[in-house]
Amino acid sequence: MSKRSLKPGTMLNPLPVVMVSCGKEESEYNIMTVAWTGIINSEPPMTYVSIRKSRLSHEIIKKNATFVINLCNEKLVKTVDYCGVVSGRDINKFKEMRLTAIKGEKTGCVMIEECPFNIECKVTNIVEYGSHDMFVAEIVGVHADEALFSRSDKLLFEKADLVVYNHGDYFALEKTSLGRFGHSVMKEKTKKRLAGENRARLRTKKR
Amino acid sequence: MSKRSLKPGTMLNPLPVVMVSCGKEESEYNIMTVAWTGIINSEPPMTYVSIRKSRLSHEIIKKNATFVINLCNEKLVKTVDYCGVVSGRDINKFKEMRLTAIKGEKTGCVMIEECPFNIECKVTNIVEYGSHDMFVAEIVGVHADEALFSRSDKLLFEKADLVVYNHGDYFALEKTSLGRFGHSVMKEKTKKRLAGENRARLRTKKR
Repeated sequence: MSKRSLKPGTMLNPLPVVMVSCGKEESEYNIMTVAWTGIINSEPPMTYVSIRKSRLSHEIIKKNATFVINLCNEKLVKTVDYCGVVSGRDINKFKEMRLTAIKGEKTGCVMIEECPFNIECKVTNIVEYGSHDMFVAEIVGVHADEALFSRSDKLLFEKADLVVYNHGDYFALEKTSLGRFGHSVMKEKTKKRLAGENRARLRTKKR
Repeated sequence: MSKRSLKPGTMLNPLPVVMVSCGKEESEYNIMTVAWTGIINSEPPMTYVSIRKSRLSHEIIKKNATFVINLCNEKLVKTVDYCGVVSGRDINKFKEMRLTAIKGEKTGCVMIEECPFNIECKVTNIVEYGSHDMFVAEIVGVHADEALFSRSDKLLFEKADLVVYNHGDYFALEKTSLGRFGHSVMKEKTKKRLAGENRARLRTKKR
């Protein structure tokens, strides 16, 4: 297997593609699409978004020290794309994309109701790296659609139909998992039990 | 659409799942699987991996100030999982998983030949966030399998079959894109031209 060397670049893929909402007052509400995000710490849960200084959202997030990461599903892909290519200076993206603004209870920051998950973030510091500023933040609240829970209150995560960004294209995930974390060292007995639970879960989903 | 509030946690999904290789000398070569990674800056290209202090790779990366992010495909999922649950203190993961160690020309750091992409990284600083230390790094080299290039030297990215980590499960991506970046504002003429190019690309793939 021979290798070809390429120019150093941002080749890490696939990446989450999320809509970041910001603003505490309706007049400043904005949305931008971001793939430069990730988890940087587990306890406490911490994340970041990297944003160019020239963006309107940069200004709004810096002022309020809060933003919301809204996870996106297949139905929202056109909206996600639109919110990544137009500026809030020209367009009210909530209105134009018919999105519903709701308030995050932990931060007072605007969230997008149509997204299956909303992650409220409080900025702890901003680091300048050149083209982008990294807004480092603590995750202080998580909200999920009621429709994602089973009758027995189990979160059916796969029903969220989340999408990814892969080298310039948006993709859905295949419906069947390639394996659960830990499957490579799992005992056959455990695997069978989990497979049984999975079947039960799929039956629940069909209801 | 009503919402349910959950405990604040690392709910950002899906995430890239990569094998991070480290070590400059064969005796210290190690691999760990990481989902806490992302892009933090475009020019220069910068990334990070967040690692617990207790991990062997933490020690090795800190010593050498370099690591390689190896992107993973569907064939490698069991290996990816295994490298995320066992420690290099107990097992030589290269040997156990029959992976081929090759040297990164820019860093001297070990890379995994079987991975479709290898991203060489030089650590610029380490930030402590609590459970994890964030190794911030500049991307100084990118290598891709020769098999991913068409006869006309075009990188056929989708052939890499990269996988993601989604709330505890590994997933492949669907084969057909949901849309290209910018499709929401693209003129019909451009869309048709790109669709034509895509068909040509798929024909190339079938050869």
